[in-house]
Amino acid sequence: MKKTIIVFSGDLDKALAAFIIANGAAAMGDDVTMFFTFWALNILRKPQAPAHKKSFLQGMFGGMMPKGPAKLGISKMNFGGMGAKMMRRVMRQQNVNSLEELIQTAREQGVKMIACTMSMDVLGFKEDELVDGLEYAGVATYLGEADESNVSLFI
Amino acid sequence: MKKTIIVFSGDLDKALAAFIIANGAAAMGDDVTMFFTFWALNILRKPQAPAHKKSFLQGMFGGMMPKGPAKLGISKMNFGGMGAKMMRRVMRQQNVNSLEELIQTAREQGVKMIACTMSMDVLGFKEDELVDGLEYAGVATYLGEADESNVSLFI
Amino acid sequence: MKKTIIVFSGDLDKALAAFIIANGAAAMGDDVTMFFTFWALNILRKPQAPAHKKSFLQGMFGGMMPKGPAKLGISKMNFGGMGAKMMRRVMRQQNVNSLEELIQTAREQGVKMIACTMSMDVLGFKEDELVDGLEYAGVATYLGEADESNVSLFI
Repeated sequence: MKKTIIVFSGDLDKALAAFIIANGAAAMGDDVTMFFTFWALNILRKPQAPAHKKSFLQGMFGGMMPKGPAKLGISKMNFGGMGAKMMRRVMRQQNVNSLEELIQTAREQGVKMIACTMSMDVLGFKEDELVDGLEYAGVATYLGEADESNVSLFI
Repeated sequence: MKKTIIVFSGDLDKALAAFIIANGAAAMGDDVTMFFTFWALNILRKPQAPAHKKSFLQGMFGGMMPKGPAKLGISKMNFGGMGAKMMRRVMRQQNVNSLEELIQTAREQGVKMIACTMSMDVLGFKEDELVDGLEYAGVATYLGEADESNVSLFI
Repeated sequence: MKKTIIVFSGDLDKALAAFIIANGAAAMGDDVTMFFTFWALNILRKPQAPAHKKSFLQGMFGGMMPKGPAKLGISKMNFGGMGAKMMRRVMRQQNVNSLEELIQTAREQGVKMIACTMSMDVLGFKEDELVDGLEYAGVATYLGEADESNVSLFI
């Protein structure tokens, strides 16, 4: 049965949870759709993206928000990024896959990743600022996917 | 099919997500129930509400928490309200509906909005401090709605 | 019908929401599974736990994170624990059950509580540091429970 996950948070810890669930379901043979909206678009940003003309506010948001998985903070005890760094290190010590590896596995397992176009408009993200292999759609598409799913999560 | 959303967060960004999903589903012909609990009750507060005798702690919570959609902060990068102001402005520039408009649309589309009575008791909110047109109920009602739904989210 | 709740947050307010929903569903005759992962493991920590040799980082995380329900903060307006203290007091004044009582009720009602083993490995928690009566499992078990449920939440 299909699983659909709205990924709203751009925190490292919640992104990890989302991909661990997605990959687990895909490994068990489920279709999985992840719908990335708002802060979660930061998970999908390329570290080096082509420059675009943006509104002043979009430029500010874009400049202050993390560019890709390596820059994400954790939702608690982040201490300006030190918490995230510690989290990454302890995960490596415990042989847990990094977020980058989990994203790669999700792609290989055919997890469908959709970037929310309304959020992209608001935050001023163009398609070439986000990683390749995404689909682009809005809330109607999400709802269509959710209607076919037996588990729907908002993370 | 019915959709049921628990709105727990009182952050502007999450409230927007909740209403965009609710309105999208209602536009596609679904029954939608939103169950507002805890911080999310702040979304429903009237900016000017009649005074009530409250316990000292309830008065403190009520005084410090935002009174209605215009006062909500965003969950990240709020910077004492400046982030929320920027978010509202960039949404206006991108012709995205404001939270106030989304709430209005939800009403017009017949989205059922329930205020959690247990949270109201804890936080000391009376019915006339919240906007009109709400239903008032507890967790059993939520569970009844969720049992009839094919999508249940906690936001 | 079964309900499955992923409890990811270790905040007092969200833990309360999770247990109120779980207990409500159990009282209505539903099977309920709670899957505790990441920060939510702190809800299950014994205040006085046996000492274990841990990595430096695990020791740091363990030392800084709250040990059990009495130490949890609230997700907003916590002010170094004062907000949580106020929340507990106002709940008592309103005769709402404390988190400790809700956990006890969940046990008595047969709510299945699973601690996420991958999170335990990352954070360095051993079984005897967590309260008794838990099951220990990973994401595959969660997905199996969710597949049997008509409501799945991520809190």
